[in-house]
Amino acid sequence: MIIDVHGHYTTAPTALGAWRDRQIAGLADPSRSANPSDLTISDDELRESIESNQLKKMKERGSDLTIFSPRASFMAHHIGNFQTSSSWAAICNELCFRVAQMYPDHFVPAAMLPQSPGVDPASCIPELVKCVEQYGNVGINLNPDPSGGHWTSPPLTDRYWYRIYEKMVEYDIPAMIHVSTSCNPCFHTTGAHYLNADTTAFMQCLTGDLFKDFPTLKFLIPHGGGAVPYHWGRFRGLAQELKKPLLDEHLLNNIYFDTCVYHQPGIDLLTTVIPVKNILFASEMIGAVRGIDPTTGHYYDDTKRYVEATSRLSADDRHLVYEGNARRVFSRLDAQLRKKGL
Amino acid sequence: MIIDVHGHYTTAPTALGAWRDRQIAGLADPSRSANPSDLTISDDELRESIESNQLKKMKERGSDLTIFSPRASFMAHHIGNFQTSSSWAAICNELCFRVAQMYPDHFVPAAMLPQSPGVDPASCIPELVKCVEQYGNVGINLNPDPSGGHWTSPPLTDRYWYRIYEKMVEYDIPAMIHVSTSCNPCFHTTGAHYLNADTTAFMQCLTGDLFKDFPTLKFLIPHGGGAVPYHWGRFRGLAQELKKPLLDEHLLNNIYFDTCVYHQPGIDLLTTVIPVKNILFASEMIGAVRGIDPTTGHYYDDTKRYVEATSRLSADDRHLVYEGNARRVFSRLDAQLRKKGL
Repeated sequence: MIIDVHGHYTTAPTALGAWRDRQIAGLADPSRSANPSDLTISDDELRESIESNQLKKMKERGSDLTIFSPRASFMAHHIGNFQTSSSWAAICNELCFRVAQMYPDHFVPAAMLPQSPGVDPASCIPELVKCVEQYGNVGINLNPDPSGGHWTSPPLTDRYWYRIYEKMVEYDIPAMIHVSTSCNPCFHTTGAHYLNADTTAFMQCLTGDLFKDFPTLKFLIPHGGGAVPYHWGRFRGLAQELKKPLLDEHLLNNIYFDTCVYHQPGIDLLTTVIPVKNILFASEMIGAVRGIDPTTGHYYDDTKRYVEATSRLSADDRHLVYEGNARRVFSRLDAQLRKKGL
Repeated sequence: MIIDVHGHYTTAPTALGAWRDRQIAGLADPSRSANPSDLTISDDELRESIESNQLKKMKERGSDLTIFSPRASFMAHHIGNFQTSSSWAAICNELCFRVAQMYPDHFVPAAMLPQSPGVDPASCIPELVKCVEQYGNVGINLNPDPSGGHWTSPPLTDRYWYRIYEKMVEYDIPAMIHVSTSCNPCFHTTGAHYLNADTTAFMQCLTGDLFKDFPTLKFLIPHGGGAVPYHWGRFRGLAQELKKPLLDEHLLNNIYFDTCVYHQPGIDLLTTVIPVKNILFASEMIGAVRGIDPTTGHYYDDTKRYVEATSRLSADDRHLVYEGNARRVFSRLDAQLRKKGL
């Protein structure tokens, strides 16, 4: 089985975006505000958006199951207040849940949280509980910068975040550390902010001792870990300077990287420097980079081709990257699959 | 000849730091303020700091000439106002000039600028002119985020920066795009902020059309280009999405990367994906990572070993990386060397 641990519902029916536009307009002019009950999206619309997009490409490329969360750039936690994020997260998570119900063999949901800048992360717990207990979510996306590029929250190692971590540990669910749209004009969302956040999150964990407090906490750092694997020597050296243990011991029992790196040399490097047990297959399809690479004739984000082609992985390694590691890290997914005899 | 294009005066005599501490104390309590004339550092002190550190390691490792600029993390443009930065930059640039005068075969200076958040970059031009015309500086370090991790300045493609670029083009000097200390607790200075800035600067250039306005402007992106080469497929794909030309044409006549990547797989990737003409040898010695890599027994920042060992470069390629490209990009260095018959 090939499990893609990083897919977002980027192709949701246009009614979703229109509702969000009304919600945002309502922040300035309450007469224009939208209620969640105003939004109606039929099963047929969901089917059309999935079957002609993600599911079509999964079948073409040969992946079986996607861990599916709301569109990352649309989370936009910086907009409005907690109530804004709360309504929006509930709507987006429900849509992913409905998709997973319709295609239980192909999609399993992961939740966005109703984060809001300056609001206690504990406020997200009711949505998290609902998504895990009622919707069968197997993970969450945690935004380390709900301000959208101004980085006003404490580092991930701060006790500020601990209530979320306690709940993650209780449920044994991982968090993908994933920012949303940048509203800082310095940072392009998918070309700078996403990658910077990956690097930043890793370095926050490196400087702290979070995993002493939470030995079973699991973070998935997307986009191949930002700059981290390319600078693995730098990070190993910085850990030495900071008198931390070797990274294998200090971080690699808790931190995982996905394979959203869109060319062969990148995947070759990732699989050279990061232990196989820490690499999870993913494509972020359909995401930031949708075109065809003129140097290969294939889609940039068809990352399975790079994983297949790299000489760094044995057949057993590939099984871990495609399935074994995902089932270990997303243990609730494993439990769901076992119930089905898989 | 082996030219290291990225070295900072990280080992300056302690009197320099003590003066800076007094300058900062004076911002809150003018009775404690320091005048530039209060600082006295002898030639012997400079000699000691260089001969037992940078010059010693250059000889051990086999590099000949370092483009030498003030300590990046000490620039700290976020402290005080323009006058604060102006006094500080003048002092730091003078020290690098003195080092270059004492060791003309081994050090050539590059200037820090007296940037200050919210202050027109044109205010830096007198210091830049002095450094080029009187001190023989061959390049500058330009900080895209003088706020120190809050990213409050416009992107590098904004006309806000154009007065600096006009002067760079007039002198035909490149800018290394290099941030300073992060005062945002989210960003570790050398483990996150530096790399993020490299990625951010590249993406700013990718989304803009700066090099249409300045076809001969040259930016050196340090630390191996941050996350950029590792995600080269992503950036090629994003350029397509944004309807930009291929990166070779859009950016690679103007943007260069150094080799400050502290392990072999990183240098292998850099030299695989980035054209040889765009790679300049550098180590940032003595810098953020000073230890010995237990997996190799050599210093992490002894980057010459990786450049020697990579199978990606021919002898001619290595000559370009070590010398030819540096002389082309730093044309005023080339002119100085030619005057000496080199």
